[in-house]
Amino acid sequence: MPQIDNVNELLTQTQSLIGDALQAVEATFATELASKNPYLRDIYQHTSRFRGKRLRPILCLLTAKACGEIKREHEILAAVVEMIHTATLVHDDVLDNADIRRHVATVNVRWNNHTSVLYGDFLFTHSFHLAAETGSAEACRLIGRATNLVCEGELTQIRNRGNLNLTEAEYLNIIDGKTAELCAVACLLGAKFANADQETIKRLENFGRLLGQAFQIADDVLDLTGLESNVGKTLGTDLFQQKLTLPIIRLLGKSSEQSKSELTELLEAGTDEAAQKIVHLAKEEGVIEESFDFAKQLATQAQSELDILPDSPAKQVLLKLPIMSINRVV
Amino acid sequence: MPQIDNVNELLTQTQSLIGDALQAVEATFATELASKNPYLRDIYQHTSRFRGKRLRPILCLLTAKACGEIKREHEILAAVVEMIHTATLVHDDVLDNADIRRHVATVNVRWNNHTSVLYGDFLFTHSFHLAAETGSAEACRLIGRATNLVCEGELTQIRNRGNLNLTEAEYLNIIDGKTAELCAVACLLGAKFANADQETIKRLENFGRLLGQAFQIADDVLDLTGLESNVGKTLGTDLFQQKLTLPIIRLLGKSSEQSKSELTELLEAGTDEAAQKIVHLAKEEGVIEESFDFAKQLATQAQSELDILPDSPAKQVLLKLPIMSINRVV
Repeated sequence: MPQIDNVNELLTQTQSLIGDALQAVEATFATELASKNPYLRDIYQHTSRFRGKRLRPILCLLTAKACGEIKREHEILAAVVEMIHTATLVHDDVLDNADIRRHVATVNVRWNNHTSVLYGDFLFTHSFHLAAETGSAEACRLIGRATNLVCEGELTQIRNRGNLNLTEAEYLNIIDGKTAELCAVACLLGAKFANADQETIKRLENFGRLLGQAFQIADDVLDLTGLESNVGKTLGTDLFQQKLTLPIIRLLGKSSEQSKSELTELLEAGTDEAAQKIVHLAKEEGVIEESFDFAKQLATQAQSELDILPDSPAKQVLLKLPIMSINRVV
Repeated sequence: MPQIDNVNELLTQTQSLIGDALQAVEATFATELASKNPYLRDIYQHTSRFRGKRLRPILCLLTAKACGEIKREHEILAAVVEMIHTATLVHDDVLDNADIRRHVATVNVRWNNHTSVLYGDFLFTHSFHLAAETGSAEACRLIGRATNLVCEGELTQIRNRGNLNLTEAEYLNIIDGKTAELCAVACLLGAKFANADQETIKRLENFGRLLGQAFQIADDVLDLTGLESNVGKTLGTDLFQQKLTLPIIRLLGKSSEQSKSELTELLEAGTDEAAQKIVHLAKEEGVIEESFDFAKQLATQAQSELDILPDSPAKQVLLKLPIMSINRVV
């Protein structure tokens, strides 16, 4: 079994295992969104510039490969999951008033909020249309259910903006919906359509879920510590919007009544200066490191779910994904 | 065959024919959206107050009845179509900055725009989840396709805001997507799941489409002529947002170069006073009446699509629906 020492090697390995299927996913994505309408073509071309690592399609296809054969259904469903993810990004950017996404102007900035809302809807509905192309109502149901939970997670997050008493359990529940669910269903569908047994499907779904949770925690840490120029998206939005994330929840938990009320004032101030102070405090109290350690624990748990699979090149790559997906933070 | 002379009689007739099925649709709608999350329950209860005539479920169920038997699939799909309609209303209210809908505060006003965007997404994804409960991937595909076209229609409308050269053909294309498509698919599904033949399915789809077009033109006329207190929603929004509708397109078409440039100035002014002047001009030039006559023509065409059905109480009610759906204007 070849060792995979770095990200580039991992990508090369992924390409050699599922490169053809990934190309088919891209083609399916593009064909589904091809429109005679020049306005829609423009928006599609623009948004295709901020599509990223294809984590969710890769999860679906590698899971399929590790359980058996990649089929046409997998390619379709991988495109579906990526399309839903893109729809949520387009709507997130409206909600966050974000200006850039992967170094490119967001739809709300390049066009306007109205276009963003409707283009997100357009992507959602296309993804469901595409899911139906598998001919499997069960696939449609699973995709529908997962996307529901994504929306429910996002709504719970919005509701808790400004709630400085948000608990760690509530936070984990939110990220389980808004991020982990889609990774979980990508793996579930990969295993299911490769005819894996119930136990394997369940463990791979859980692999995706844990990976997604780890990824989101790492992303939340990054929102606090990263620099705009390095990451290619608007940062610090969680703080400014008073969305509590793990490091801040832990920081509040560690604070005395006195310092808690000072911290609350900083959180409510919403200035750059206040944000800098909060990051400084978070580093000082070790909650950045703690949060990142927690993400690592989840990533390790994710890996152990793969015990159920026989060894294979696909399994070897899957094993590396949880750590890779959080490592861009350090 | 009983004569149906007025709206109340029509409603009584509808209730006696499909009352039980309509109740089942309501129960399905409510069960699907029941959430343990108190926030979501609140929003659901609020939005249920501005649900209206149930035109789309009625179309689906009456079509089913006129073609054969109402089945469980019809009840599910009728709830799906109504849920998609509700999702588009919630997003429309954000886009229009509307304050009231059916005499009730919109979600964007009662909560905020973020909640509206996400709650609309929540409804869209629930509707697809529910469609999958029929066990028919074909139903999911048809629903997905129709909803696509709704979004595409809305996007084309947004793109053409401020385009004072919008043609009548372009306008009809927009309303065909944003309104008629969902009425068309409601009838298509009604006929299809009652095992109607291909020709009948096609003609009933067309019945729904023509009815939807007529309805939207009437609605656009109402936006111009109605009074806020009577209609229960924010009016004049098309004018203020420079969305050209049939009466205005015709008014521009009839104007000399001189009066066209005056009209353009009024459209661009966006004041109440300018709106009043435009309505006055539209009445004077007869384009309100012309537009309403055009809606009546479409309604009559819709009726003639029903020729393919054998006579039945359900057909008799269907025959009355196109005129009823435009008559609230006069």
